[in-house]
Amino acid sequence: MPRIVKHPQERRKELLDAARDLFFERGYEATTVNDIIARAGMSKGGFYHHFASKEDVLEALAEAMARESLAQLQAILDEPGLDALTRLNAFLSRARRLKVEQAPAIRAMFYVIFRPGNLVLYHRLNAAVGAVTLPALARIIAQGQEEGIFDVPDVQAVAEIILTLGASTHDAVARAVNAADTLEGEAAAAALDERLRMHGIALDRILGLPDGSIRFVENGFAKALMMPAQAP
Amino acid sequence: MPRIVKHPQERRKELLDAARDLFFERGYEATTVNDIIARAGMSKGGFYHHFASKEDVLEALAEAMARESLAQLQAILDEPGLDALTRLNAFLSRARRLKVEQAPAIRAMFYVIFRPGNLVLYHRLNAAVGAVTLPALARIIAQGQEEGIFDVPDVQAVAEIILTLGASTHDAVARAVNAADTLEGEAAAAALDERLRMHGIALDRILGLPDGSIRFVENGFAKALMMPAQAP
Repeated sequence: MPRIVKHPQERRKELLDAARDLFFERGYEATTVNDIIARAGMSKGGFYHHFASKEDVLEALAEAMARESLAQLQAILDEPGLDALTRLNAFLSRARRLKVEQAPAIRAMFYVIFRPGNLVLYHRLNAAVGAVTLPALARIIAQGQEEGIFDVPDVQAVAEIILTLGASTHDAVARAVNAADTLEGEAAAAALDERLRMHGIALDRILGLPDGSIRFVENGFAKALMMPAQAP
Repeated sequence: MPRIVKHPQERRKELLDAARDLFFERGYEATTVNDIIARAGMSKGGFYHHFASKEDVLEALAEAMARESLAQLQAILDEPGLDALTRLNAFLSRARRLKVEQAPAIRAMFYVIFRPGNLVLYHRLNAAVGAVTLPALARIIAQGQEEGIFDVPDVQAVAEIILTLGASTHDAVARAVNAADTLEGEAAAAALDERLRMHGIALDRILGLPDGSIRFVENGFAKALMMPAQAP
């Protein structure tokens, strides 16, 4: 039988798909590198050609999810005739809707990276997702600055500052993730909504906008994202 | 000879002192856990009773340095008759002076945590230092809010947001650290000063102050911190 030579990127994608399936079926902690190799029908050497560790795979999955989301948001970035604030709010609104649609996948990932002791993994994934998001954010800020709607001292620096700021919600997200299946779930989700609202006000101010200009959250968002739908 | 029983905290301090000396003499990377044990005259079990790893030791050292600095800044926090903005600027000014005075120790630590690949260690140390700093920051913000000088939606949330923001200068600091001994050292230090100025403006806005109210940096600060003094 002739050996089928696959493109390295195709191999990498197969490993990622196998890992994603396994992380969902068994959970991240219970999945081993050997499980991923077996599922993808690949050699150990093949795996380590692409990834140094299971954590590397998770980081690549997070980056891939961020790229897929950004592709779905591209139409809003390219839509002509939107001023920068309208564009930013449309972008954030659609991003929230995407997150709620992908809630099971996001919860599975959050369950891993927001566990106590996994702060390091959280920062790796946060940096990977941030790198994907930065150009889109810088583009919207540059538009707002040109239009005189935003007022920032430096577009690139402010885009980087805003991305860093995302990590300030870490503890509130962690509490909501870890309380999701408990009696405190609703309260933790409401506290996260409130914390995201504070985050929105910080963004308003950094961009030189009146408080409340950016709609960073709506009530019930954290609950829709974090808590599995209840039977009616 | 009677065995001298030392208090566990005293043992821990001896390990930290030995580690600090060795990190300075040989560098962090070149120092092993065995070196630290030998220098402190302690057993392996004694070491692992206090620390899980060499990284743990570095985190504890960073926390100890932060505590020592904060103790030196306590007088400014307690000084009666200062309004919150004056107190904050005095606090930041004295903190910068302390950093420049401790520049060799800080450079040695920065050299480790701002190396590419050590982002994880950076975030651990940043979190440890942040936890030491948070109460002082929240106290100043609460004072400013009471005085009507600051205008924030929530004291505790804003204190946490501001601490998180510190990480947004990571890349600029890393560039300055890694360029310090090169021809690009001065330019990288100047770029860091500028980036710290942006950071100060973000803080002004989050606290509801006019741009430039908080003196977060003075020109030449990054150079004084990062670049070993030249012979005159």
